[in-house]
Amino acid sequence: MNKTILTLVAVVLLFNCSTAQKVTPVEAPKVVSTIDKSDIKASMIKALEWQEAHPIFAISPTDWTAGAYYVGVARAHKSTNDMIYMAALKNQGYWNNWQTYKRLHHADDVAISYSYIYIDMKGGRRNFVDLEPTKKFLDAHLYDDDNWKAGTDKSNMGKTILWWWCDALFMAPPVLNLYAKHTKQPKYLDEMHKFYMETYNQLYDKEERLFARDMRFVWQGNDKDTKEPNGKKVFWSRGNGWVFAGLALILDDMPTDYEHRPFYENLYKEMADKILEIQPEDGLWRTSLLCPESYDHGEVSGSGFHTFALAWGINNGLLDKKHTPAVKKAWKALKACQHEDGRVGWVQNIGAFPEPASADSWQNFGTGAFLMAGSEVLNLD
Amino acid sequence: MNKTILTLVAVVLLFNCSTAQKVTPVEAPKVVSTIDKSDIKASMIKALEWQEAHPIFAISPTDWTAGAYYVGVARAHKSTNDMIYMAALKNQGYWNNWQTYKRLHHADDVAISYSYIYIDMKGGRRNFVDLEPTKKFLDAHLYDDDNWKAGTDKSNMGKTILWWWCDALFMAPPVLNLYAKHTKQPKYLDEMHKFYMETYNQLYDKEERLFARDMRFVWQGNDKDTKEPNGKKVFWSRGNGWVFAGLALILDDMPTDYEHRPFYENLYKEMADKILEIQPEDGLWRTSLLCPESYDHGEVSGSGFHTFALAWGINNGLLDKKHTPAVKKAWKALKACQHEDGRVGWVQNIGAFPEPASADSWQNFGTGAFLMAGSEVLNLD
Amino acid sequence: MNKTILTLVAVVLLFNCSTAQKVTPVEAPKVVSTIDKSDIKASMIKALEWQEAHPIFAISPTDWTAGAYYVGVARAHKSTNDMIYMAALKNQGYWNNWQTYKRLHHADDVAISYSYIYIDMKGGRRNFVDLEPTKKFLDAHLYDDDNWKAGTDKSNMGKTILWWWCDALFMAPPVLNLYAKHTKQPKYLDEMHKFYMETYNQLYDKEERLFARDMRFVWQGNDKDTKEPNGKKVFWSRGNGWVFAGLALILDDMPTDYEHRPFYENLYKEMADKILEIQPEDGLWRTSLLCPESYDHGEVSGSGFHTFALAWGINNGLLDKKHTPAVKKAWKALKACQHEDGRVGWVQNIGAFPEPASADSWQNFGTGAFLMAGSEVLNLD
Repeated sequence: MNKTILTLVAVVLLFNCSTAQKVTPVEAPKVVSTIDKSDIKASMIKALEWQEAHPIFAISPTDWTAGAYYVGVARAHKSTNDMIYMAALKNQGYWNNWQTYKRLHHADDVAISYSYIYIDMKGGRRNFVDLEPTKKFLDAHLYDDDNWKAGTDKSNMGKTILWWWCDALFMAPPVLNLYAKHTKQPKYLDEMHKFYMETYNQLYDKEERLFARDMRFVWQGNDKDTKEPNGKKVFWSRGNGWVFAGLALILDDMPTDYEHRPFYENLYKEMADKILEIQPEDGLWRTSLLCPESYDHGEVSGSGFHTFALAWGINNGLLDKKHTPAVKKAWKALKACQHEDGRVGWVQNIGAFPEPASADSWQNFGTGAFLMAGSEVLNLD
Repeated sequence: MNKTILTLVAVVLLFNCSTAQKVTPVEAPKVVSTIDKSDIKASMIKALEWQEAHPIFAISPTDWTAGAYYVGVARAHKSTNDMIYMAALKNQGYWNNWQTYKRLHHADDVAISYSYIYIDMKGGRRNFVDLEPTKKFLDAHLYDDDNWKAGTDKSNMGKTILWWWCDALFMAPPVLNLYAKHTKQPKYLDEMHKFYMETYNQLYDKEERLFARDMRFVWQGNDKDTKEPNGKKVFWSRGNGWVFAGLALILDDMPTDYEHRPFYENLYKEMADKILEIQPEDGLWRTSLLCPESYDHGEVSGSGFHTFALAWGINNGLLDKKHTPAVKKAWKALKACQHEDGRVGWVQNIGAFPEPASADSWQNFGTGAFLMAGSEVLNLD
Repeated sequence: MNKTILTLVAVVLLFNCSTAQKVTPVEAPKVVSTIDKSDIKASMIKALEWQEAHPIFAISPTDWTAGAYYVGVARAHKSTNDMIYMAALKNQGYWNNWQTYKRLHHADDVAISYSYIYIDMKGGRRNFVDLEPTKKFLDAHLYDDDNWKAGTDKSNMGKTILWWWCDALFMAPPVLNLYAKHTKQPKYLDEMHKFYMETYNQLYDKEERLFARDMRFVWQGNDKDTKEPNGKKVFWSRGNGWVFAGLALILDDMPTDYEHRPFYENLYKEMADKILEIQPEDGLWRTSLLCPESYDHGEVSGSGFHTFALAWGINNGLLDKKHTPAVKKAWKALKACQHEDGRVGWVQNIGAFPEPASADSWQNFGTGAFLMAGSEVLNLD
């Protein structure tokens, strides 16, 4: 996206802010004081079943969209131990022949390996999962030369580091972390940390405690800075969801005594506080976190990731239990975005900055976020 | 089918004509004056979902049955822009590895490429679709020698031209036409026209304005001619549906200034007039167009193709709007053949001449015809 | 499983016997005097649809779990001629590329070929099915040397014969029998009989007229013998179901004048009498046939196989029609274990001896057993 397009985007944002149309979820969330666990499980299974019956991908069944979806399926299995999830996981891994997607320098293309490693850890049969393609990818990804690492790519997105866009922090680091744990090779964790810091240093806004999606959205302090119609910085809900949920995934499997663990715990806490501060009244975050009036409706992929990460924090002692009601509210609102047949709606389509969703808009990664949220909400008190 | 068998068929037809059993659709069509577009869309999606959940093919997922089905899915996507259709299209193309089926001289085996070309035109990602197998097929199909072209095949079906059976005019010509447009190579269109004329000259009955299925059904004026029990010629509803719907597909993507376009427009108009003239009272055509009493129930694959072609003509100015009620009546009757769970029933099984269907009989190409019909009825005002 | 584990199992069994918890099916079976055939067909289709939408396997889509499931689908097709079953059969065969699973000495890995041979016999198109991998497997299985045949395997399970566990009598013999018939090569049937007798001689308990699962459960008359809490021998319901249903499959396609046919008919009758004798009041067999109180609930995979075999015997004159009510009662109880959405519950998971099931527990081979049962109950007058 060049600056001309960004300007157009800003105009559109402006227009939307001024005419802020209020879109309602599929059905209005009912006020319920407690959450019925069997009800959560039933919603999750329906979401899985609908998604499995509607296979979708951007460019391959091994791409990041499937990767994110099957992280959700893996977490649902981890939380419920229901073999309906493991059956789906094994089925995709088998037919994908345990392959990553093909661009070895691109974090997106190894996201699917989270599910492969998970299956290998839980699925039982020896020699069923083939982690060789994952290993080859990770080694090439970490150690081979490429334009991004070298800083020779001239894109205005700032492709001068390996993980130059914040989504990448969901795609590759949890895989490296889990692979390090599963194969007992801490070097993969160390490498993860090195590249993670690069992204953190470039895209994390310490004042706002949120991540810019990429360098186009990092202010340089001049009149070319991309602004929301209300004058604020552009912080994309899903983009921050990728980072925030990715942090929970990483912490979940990172050794408790890992030397850099405090950095991740601290970052998790900073983001959690911010995400809670800006949670809209109805429970779901808007696609533009600091200009919610742009598209004034809850968006499910970002909100699902936030809900997962917050609930995980409560369940794992990193977040005070007093935030439980806020998280439950978010889940109830997420559930209200699910259609009767299981489809998870209100998911912003593939993109790189705030855009609207609709009751009917869906994507596998949105279903994945929904499953991730459910998997941790299930474990609240 | 040799003449002995044809005689047997005639006997069966006779028997059926005399005992004409009236079969009723799943539920009787209600008289509705207007058509609710969201209702059409919902019916189409249910049809797609049921069909995707019940994969079927004659000999391969790339054969003509899948080819015709995915033409329907492509048209549904073109008309609605609903990504549920594109997801299904991409999924099949990916797993079929963009292959045609294998008999390079056989029009059936390239029908699937209509969907591949469509995805390449609409699906976005560069290098996602591989049209190389399609190109190889088309080049061999047009330019390589074979028995059919050479006229050395001794079948009584009249396999002395490339496209010796009328179904072929749906299978290959729309693909050649779309490929010519997409790749900007008019030579494929010119070749299409050349072979199309051969079939037209052999099988089109100018008096009846309908196509014989193949040479077995073209009268030679002697007592070996195949007759319906009522003494008329055998004109198969689905066979003519292949031609008629194929014409609409071709015209939809043929350059407006193409020198032979008037031929196709004229043929379209002749067939449209005839098909409208013989439309049964309840809206759906019988499997034997000129002996409807043979199997006196609406048949969905032929009727779906007719409905698509007629609605397309109205939507594109080739057919008078006064015919809109007839087309809407057909759609309502088609919809009445859909089961509650989405299954499209009353589809005659794979065959080559009129045979009965039942409320439960289904085939993917029947679902394709249903989707094609819906995709154009949706645009009737 | 070594003896320590077996002891543990015995303790668990003891515990369960004393605390016999009564688990109820999804819904209580209603007392119905006649069986509605369209109702059976509808239940079978729902079971198929749910299972196709929830693909599962232990290690590969060609493994024994899929093998047993698709035997059920094949029998459902044979009984109903509904092409919904043939579509599913062809789809799996095509995508499995007509491969067996890979361990050529292991009966489990050729179970899938039953469906391939069936498709080739019924599916129509020449050269559609490739039986070459099946032939290669069978030849290696019968004629190659291996540790089991040689008796050099030191397992306490008694792996000193080719088919050392009773499940094997379902996995390979019906395939060999059907292959012999289809290819008109009686030598495969003769080889089958040779190995069948080995298993019969090792595992069949003539007094109890039931099969031990493997040598761990054959009493040697000392205090290391594995006992149920009530002091009886361990006879696993599903294990005996494999043998009993396998016998019906074999007899169904074995030449009526085959010299060893009387042996199989006699064994069938002995088992049928026993299975009928011990049928629980509510119609469904418990996982432990002689200690039903261990897990006091009907289990569907074993019961489905028993019901299939019994109904087959009545339909084929090997069993007195007076047993029809018992078989109908079993079917009604099986049907009560099916969920509203089609899922067949109360299926014991993969195992090798009695373990409990639950309303939600499912497996593809359980669905296969359900389809097998329905396919024969449908033919009871």
